[in-house]
Amino acid sequence: MSLIEPDFKASNSYSRQDTMSIIFYDLASTSPGYSMSTNTWRVRYCLNYKGLPFTTEWVEFPEIVPLYERLGVTPTLKKPDGSPLCTVPMIYDPTTNKYISDSVVIAEYLDTQYPQTPSVFPNNTTGLIQAFSEATRAYMPPVRDFLIWTIFVKLNPPSAVYFRNQREPSLGKRMEDLVLDNQIAAIMDDFKGVLGKLDALYSKNRGKGPYIMGDVLSWADILVASLLMCFRVSAGEDSQRWKEITSWHGRRWAILMESLKKYE
Amino acid sequence: MSLIEPDFKASNSYSRQDTMSIIFYDLASTSPGYSMSTNTWRVRYCLNYKGLPFTTEWVEFPEIVPLYERLGVTPTLKKPDGSPLCTVPMIYDPTTNKYISDSVVIAEYLDTQYPQTPSVFPNNTTGLIQAFSEATRAYMPPVRDFLIWTIFVKLNPPSAVYFRNQREPSLGKRMEDLVLDNQIAAIMDDFKGVLGKLDALYSKNRGKGPYIMGDVLSWADILVASLLMCFRVSAGEDSQRWKEITSWHGRRWAILMESLKKYE
Repeated sequence: MSLIEPDFKASNSYSRQDTMSIIFYDLASTSPGYSMSTNTWRVRYCLNYKGLPFTTEWVEFPEIVPLYERLGVTPTLKKPDGSPLCTVPMIYDPTTNKYISDSVVIAEYLDTQYPQTPSVFPNNTTGLIQAFSEATRAYMPPVRDFLIWTIFVKLNPPSAVYFRNQREPSLGKRMEDLVLDNQIAAIMDDFKGVLGKLDALYSKNRGKGPYIMGDVLSWADILVASLLMCFRVSAGEDSQRWKEITSWHGRRWAILMESLKKYE
Repeated sequence: MSLIEPDFKASNSYSRQDTMSIIFYDLASTSPGYSMSTNTWRVRYCLNYKGLPFTTEWVEFPEIVPLYERLGVTPTLKKPDGSPLCTVPMIYDPTTNKYISDSVVIAEYLDTQYPQTPSVFPNNTTGLIQAFSEATRAYMPPVRDFLIWTIFVKLNPPSAVYFRNQREPSLGKRMEDLVLDNQIAAIMDDFKGVLGKLDALYSKNRGKGPYIMGDVLSWADILVASLLMCFRVSAGEDSQRWKEITSWHGRRWAILMESLKKYE
């Protein structure tokens, strides 16, 4: 278990005096301070957007089950066989003495528990955003291997071994064979196609802002940005690959990530 | 072509003096005044919700292509081979001298053209509702045959012949064999399962109203109500089957349909 480090960015000024610092369990990577989990990025964006004070506890994949056991936490999620599924993100909220896991459950909890903070489901859009999550998950199969490889190459050794053992049997190939050099151009085309479907949804906002609801940030944007973030961290913000991605669709993804930068 | 009949319900009072009556082309059924098209119901709900004056021109399936030809209209939609696809709903707006087809295109046109009327995409939710449409379309395969049969049994003879010839080759069976008496219970279970997935999205509104956004009607609700309407018209509002459907999920669908009744 790594050291707990303070993360709170004071841009939003939610009554810090009255709120005890939340502990946020995030997945470590080889880039200190930057996770390689789309799911934990969602919660980090959410906490920062709400201006809630928190500290991050960085964990590696094989540390997650022992962490739950040590804390005596029952996870929200279950495996297909019904047994508990221990995951990050998880938060501990000392104000309510609760542990909560599963990114969307955490987001809904924070909206309910801290109604004075900006909602990530504005105007009662929780159901619509759940549908957005389902619809866009169906876009993802063409980039599944690319995403897994993108994550793998940035994991610390303990997590890399764990991730490899967990994923390779169902993938039917080694991590190193997921994205071969001579496939990169085709894979980037597939990724552009996936983001093109997202662009078709975003373009419905009639150019009224960087977000799918125009100038109002929502959990839908956080889902998209968290996906993009893993590609950005893995490739590097100054890399040719990231520059290519952010050039697509009228620079929509560059503008989205820039709009969310203050909540990273 | 049937007679044009006035439909405008004066519940909403959008400046009727300044707006010429829109012509709304709808699909006739054996129940006068009630369409058997989920797509046209969407537009009828939308026009009534907006309080826009309109008259209905009822058409049968084989009359649609000749109608487009007579009016010289280029349809919005295309067949897979790229040739034009002539459909109802279509509207003619004499204020702008435009013909518009495809239900969601009509809805977006009416929102843009008549911004003083209530929007069916409130708070810039057009992209999220497009995602809702995609996600919920993926729920439908288990009830596809039931819906086709539900529509078929209420069509007038010219439309019934056309619909049979159009659909039976890809279905691989006769309309009469889609829903056999001894399958009804299992088919209703499938339908309940599909509506259960919709219920999971609606229940995210935290009980704040009959609509997916709580007390604010949107195109998402109109999509659901238009589907339900075909089942209601086909079975009959006093039928045991409709009573069973409206008893499901805490009477959610009864309450939704009741809330929308004034816009039928």
